[in-house]
Amino acid sequence: MNFDLPGLPDRCDKPRDNGLTMMMDKGLSIRQVEDTLSASHQYIDIAKLGFGTSMITNNLQQKLDLYKAAEVRTCFGGTLFELFYAKGLFDDYRKLIDKYDMPLVEVSDGSISMKHEDKCECISMLSEQTVVLSEVGSKDADNIIPPYKWIQLIETELEAGAWKVIGEAREGGNVGLFRSTGEVRSGLVEEILNTISGEKIMWEAPIKAQQVWFIKLLGANVNLGNIAPNEIIPLETLRVGLRGDTFDMFMDEKVKNKVNSNL
Amino acid sequence: MNFDLPGLPDRCDKPRDNGLTMMMDKGLSIRQVEDTLSASHQYIDIAKLGFGTSMITNNLQQKLDLYKAAEVRTCFGGTLFELFYAKGLFDDYRKLIDKYDMPLVEVSDGSISMKHEDKCECISMLSEQTVVLSEVGSKDADNIIPPYKWIQLIETELEAGAWKVIGEAREGGNVGLFRSTGEVRSGLVEEILNTISGEKIMWEAPIKAQQVWFIKLLGANVNLGNIAPNEIIPLETLRVGLRGDTFDMFMDEKVKNKVNSNL
Amino acid sequence: MNFDLPGLPDRCDKPRDNGLTMMMDKGLSIRQVEDTLSASHQYIDIAKLGFGTSMITNNLQQKLDLYKAAEVRTCFGGTLFELFYAKGLFDDYRKLIDKYDMPLVEVSDGSISMKHEDKCECISMLSEQTVVLSEVGSKDADNIIPPYKWIQLIETELEAGAWKVIGEAREGGNVGLFRSTGEVRSGLVEEILNTISGEKIMWEAPIKAQQVWFIKLLGANVNLGNIAPNEIIPLETLRVGLRGDTFDMFMDEKVKNKVNSNL
Repeated sequence: MNFDLPGLPDRCDKPRDNGLTMMMDKGLSIRQVEDTLSASHQYIDIAKLGFGTSMITNNLQQKLDLYKAAEVRTCFGGTLFELFYAKGLFDDYRKLIDKYDMPLVEVSDGSISMKHEDKCECISMLSEQTVVLSEVGSKDADNIIPPYKWIQLIETELEAGAWKVIGEAREGGNVGLFRSTGEVRSGLVEEILNTISGEKIMWEAPIKAQQVWFIKLLGANVNLGNIAPNEIIPLETLRVGLRGDTFDMFMDEKVKNKVNSNL
Repeated sequence: MNFDLPGLPDRCDKPRDNGLTMMMDKGLSIRQVEDTLSASHQYIDIAKLGFGTSMITNNLQQKLDLYKAAEVRTCFGGTLFELFYAKGLFDDYRKLIDKYDMPLVEVSDGSISMKHEDKCECISMLSEQTVVLSEVGSKDADNIIPPYKWIQLIETELEAGAWKVIGEAREGGNVGLFRSTGEVRSGLVEEILNTISGEKIMWEAPIKAQQVWFIKLLGANVNLGNIAPNEIIPLETLRVGLRGDTFDMFMDEKVKNKVNSNL
Repeated sequence: MNFDLPGLPDRCDKPRDNGLTMMMDKGLSIRQVEDTLSASHQYIDIAKLGFGTSMITNNLQQKLDLYKAAEVRTCFGGTLFELFYAKGLFDDYRKLIDKYDMPLVEVSDGSISMKHEDKCECISMLSEQTVVLSEVGSKDADNIIPPYKWIQLIETELEAGAWKVIGEAREGGNVGLFRSTGEVRSGLVEEILNTISGEKIMWEAPIKAQQVWFIKLLGANVNLGNIAPNEIIPLETLRVGLRGDTFDMFMDEKVKNKVNSNL
């Protein structure tokens, strides 16, 4: 930090297993990646090259190298896995992951329907190659999955070899974990957390109010995903109470009561 | 593309006459233009220097040169034409287009009222200098133009010499082709397409749901405008089915049915 | 300007005391600051390093130097003052302002409750070190301050030594001066202006419709704050009538009537 301020919450250091920030890179140029890293590399754990953007953005290898040098783990979007899988090209996808030496791979079924045992088989096979993030939740706003089913899916995918399970929200933050208005399905989240440790879940939360909600529930070191590049630093200020929305979280009561006579 | 995936739709190559993407540059710096081009130059056909930004953004000539070198055609916003015209300075505007050797010029009447025969006369005169994009649709949300009138205006402007006619939406995507909520006036679009070839129209569609709607209606090679610089690559993934929203468009039925047993 | 167009309103030159644009920098990298300045330095008067971002963004001193060289005055977010103050570290904050030789400091109470005489005492003490911007309005949407109270607070803070008083809106433009929908509390603004000169107030107005509203009310040289970096040039076009929304403001009646026969 640039200067001292006592009483801020501890944040785990990179490489960390909890308190992860997953950034959404949906087509950044090399220099834009450099810019983002120069201002905030220590706050970015994962860069997801969203949906199929990795296929068409210029200078892919150079971008992967840049992230690697900054200890940011890269991951292609789950939609790319689904495309290969749907076309019967799962083996080609496995080769692609090896070819680019991807430190992470996402397995999702947000746009296709596949048997859950097949999804788990994919997770299992890919976990022999690299670290797997699986994703639960449909991209279809009309496809509401009940809480008991979320729990069942998450547990089975972790058993199959997933490192963490992502709770779907899309870039818009309006499906899966959230209502179409962006409001958190708080009952769903609480039921999940009643059974599964929050550390095993990466919550997609692209909208500030959603980030605040999860930080208030689970603290500074909650795993949050689908963060836009220019929201990395604002999110970090939320995590450590440097912004109005979470200002009170890390103030002790004595300080709060003294606030009227602090000159 | 960085790697192969069979079955994606064909996209025309640059310079193309259809399947155009018109980007909105509302004040990018030189290096920001370089960044955008380095990641995605092949997906950008036109850079519109929105409204009057060309007048006040530093380093205009250098920017025009950069776009030209990347085979991106530049265009001043229609509002600039309207300003010169309203002040009785149409001849000065013609000289300006020549001075900067603009490959495109936009003729619109979104903020002024002018006789349509005068607008067509402007289109005709400017089309002797360079390529003309004309625009139909008011920037005023309360000024609803009925479909038969849109068709009449578009046809007359094409006859007067316009290369394509732009359907107005503004940067916000909430007027002209769209309701104030951003919803497409689908009846209007369908009536227009019943008479006029979709290839002659550039649809302004700044919002993702609008882009998806037009791609589903007219395919990968629809002309789309008012695209933000950081949405160029996401739009291209929509065009070729690399994103959840258009994922199904380019899957053949055999693949769709096989999707449950693709290991 | 890149070319001439008669009849645009006069804008004051930098360094100016009125017609200020305060940009919100919420974690820009060094190169992103350079980019913003290269395209538009003459339109940026103040760069606010929003809330506590100055504490965690890399290369702080280099950023401050860059802004200074471009004659852009920098300011830490008011939330940072509030954090130090709430923790009983006001003296440390004063030292921090000196250490970084900040040309501006913001004193606010948007997230804490403090006696107004204590706030004014802080304003007074800090105004001996540098130039003070104070801020009125809660970040809490449920905490509605009535107009007479706004006026009283503003007047007292100006007397205590504030150079200008900021009207709170947050980054979202949905509290303080605005309703939760973003709509201006126009009655509040008009009551304030009935007593206090508009030149003494910096209106936070992050949303375009809000900027248009204030420009229509107070003209090209109104003070506007919380402007995103990529909205600096679009805002400047609004100020001088180079965009549809304020197009008519600077057209004289003779021109408006002639508009139909300008070929």
